Amino acid sequence: MNTDSRAYGTPSADAPLEEMQIQRRAPGPGDVHIEITYCGVCHSDIHTARNEWLNSVYPVIPGHEIIGRVVGVGSKVKAFKTGDLVGVGCMVDSCMECDPCTDHLEQFCTHGCTWTYNSPDLHMGGRTYGGYSTHIVVREEFVLKIPENLDEKATAPLLCAGITTWSPLRHWKVGKGDRVGVVGLGGLGHMGIKFARALGAHVVVITRSPEKGRDAEELGAHEVLLSTDPEAMKAFVNSLDFILNTIPVGHEMDPYISLLKIDATMVLVGAVEPLKPFHGGGIIMGRKRIAGSLIGGIRETQEMLDFCGQHNIVSDIELIRMQEINEAYDRVVRSDVKYRFVIDMQSLKE
Amino acid sequence: MNTDSRAYGTPSADAPLEEMQIQRRAPGPGDVHIEITYCGVCHSDIHTARNEWLNSVYPVIPGHEIIGRVVGVGSKVKAFKTGDLVGVGCMVDSCMECDPCTDHLEQFCTHGCTWTYNSPDLHMGGRTYGGYSTHIVVREEFVLKIPENLDEKATAPLLCAGITTWSPLRHWKVGKGDRVGVVGLGGLGHMGIKFARALGAHVVVITRSPEKGRDAEELGAHEVLLSTDPEAMKAFVNSLDFILNTIPVGHEMDPYISLLKIDATMVLVGAVEPLKPFHGGGIIMGRKRIAGSLIGGIRETQEMLDFCGQHNIVSDIELIRMQEINEAYDRVVRSDVKYRFVIDMQSLKE
Repeated sequence: MNTDSRAYGTPSADAPLEEMQIQRRAPGPGDVHIEITYCGVCHSDIHTARNEWLNSVYPVIPGHEIIGRVVGVGSKVKAFKTGDLVGVGCMVDSCMECDPCTDHLEQFCTHGCTWTYNSPDLHMGGRTYGGYSTHIVVREEFVLKIPENLDEKATAPLLCAGITTWSPLRHWKVGKGDRVGVVGLGGLGHMGIKFARALGAHVVVITRSPEKGRDAEELGAHEVLLSTDPEAMKAFVNSLDFILNTIPVGHEMDPYISLLKIDATMVLVGAVEPLKPFHGGGIIMGRKRIAGSLIGGIRETQEMLDFCGQHNIVSDIELIRMQEINEAYDRVVRSDVKYRFVIDMQSLKE
Repeated sequence: MNTDSRAYGTPSADAPLEEMQIQRRAPGPGDVHIEITYCGVCHSDIHTARNEWLNSVYPVIPGHEIIGRVVGVGSKVKAFKTGDLVGVGCMVDSCMECDPCTDHLEQFCTHGCTWTYNSPDLHMGGRTYGGYSTHIVVREEFVLKIPENLDEKATAPLLCAGITTWSPLRHWKVGKGDRVGVVGLGGLGHMGIKFARALGAHVVVITRSPEKGRDAEELGAHEVLLSTDPEAMKAFVNSLDFILNTIPVGHEMDPYISLLKIDATMVLVGAVEPLKPFHGGGIIMGRKRIAGSLIGGIRETQEMLDFCGQHNIVSDIELIRMQEINEAYDRVVRSDVKYRFVIDMQSLKE
């Protein structure tokens, strides 16, 4: 086990065992060694840090919205060189041979992809460690190029919140002339608005809150539909070509289903938990569909980043120091952030 | 109001007002006048006869799986002539001008199609009356040609149970090499097995009952998966390209969702009622889809009937006399029929 590449995590200097556990592997021939500059804060980080999904193996180093500069590459790495601005998202490895992998859907790897943190580490044993750290070593195929023209710190959330909303919009071919509903205005929803608008769609944000409605318009929504207004909801029945539903918890779906046109789809990207009952008649009348979507493949993620470079799209963020992470977590849980916290890794050196 | 075409329904001779209410219209220039020979018994008939959907307007004459012979046609009718073997399904009219209608999806007519029974009758006022009757008058565009080579009485259920299962199989392009699950083995499910097999798919019937499993194999299923066997269910995880779910009531969907491959769809055609909660993660992992489907358009219904003629496909039925209808209803409610009752309209003349 090579120890020349050390991660910087939570363990203190008087915890040598834990320090050993968070060693990074030395870069191999196909690896890219990255010095992390920024890392976004995803709600999944909180679920894992707090073991809310009951699968955390401590020590945990969260973070899968990673931005940094290449500080070294293995001998077989072709696409990256020292100094490149790069990103790492939710995955750092997969088998690359199964049907989903060869279809560029590494997130659905038959053997299970290696998540960026808290996932069995095939190289080092133990678990993978994420981006709340100064360095990371990742195989070339899972490293993304970040367009240099973008505001570096604000690109971090593109690696999870960005691709999670981009992938379904692209997969369901949302484009010019489509009427797209976006439900939920958080880290995911605010990216959904930006992408749907940039793809040429007419964007309707559906929210309970007039205040969020105003925010949505500032982000680019063409229309705001207050879900608390029965008359307004009625006027939108059967009117949307697609709904991107980013609500992170189980919720009543019938009101949103009613807004879909015939053959239209509502895609859930947030609610990884039991959903509330909905009425079978709501999808049978109109041959409507409810689907799920999980981040996106690596090729699609690069496509999204290139699109962001061309259209100058980044996330709206609040930059924090690592020392503020616990307060940030509490604020994320309260939905009190517009719209994503990003950690400045310089703060780890303070 | 013309009264020369009388329906024969439930009212007795001493109820002249009710008799008036069930008059059929005289055939107009675009109408086909049909003498009904057989009519299938659909569960919807029972819901309506018993006002279980709370929308019945009495007197009700159910029946939307109608087979008969043309006894007269209007001056402008081109596609039918006296003596033709014809069918009428769940719809007898629609606007024919809206987007769904011009897309051959009359069942989703923007203005609401006219259902074959208990639907506002645009010609006569009051409500439409269905196929438990000796005659019916229907505009040409909603009359289907029945292949003469088929067993006439066993074609009746094709008009509802048939098209309800055919339409999703065709819309989601089920064909050779696909692994298709069929859930629920009743009037709909038994047609689903026949169609999926005839379309070239590998058919897996998913049932709780070993006895139903044996029946399913006799109907053409290649495999039977007992949903009560956890090991067997596990072996089928992520293995099906499509699931046709004909269960008529709300039910646990997670076990079936787990059987879908990436990007695969489960279509509900039976459960027009609140569904039980399912887990968002089940569709998010694998980008899976849940959809609904409602009968099918007229063009698609004719396509299905032609396919049945070519492949000699009919329903498995029990022929009954009209005098046995109440007992038949009770047996349908108990799922005690293989697989559809059909009423012999000769019995109305006894």
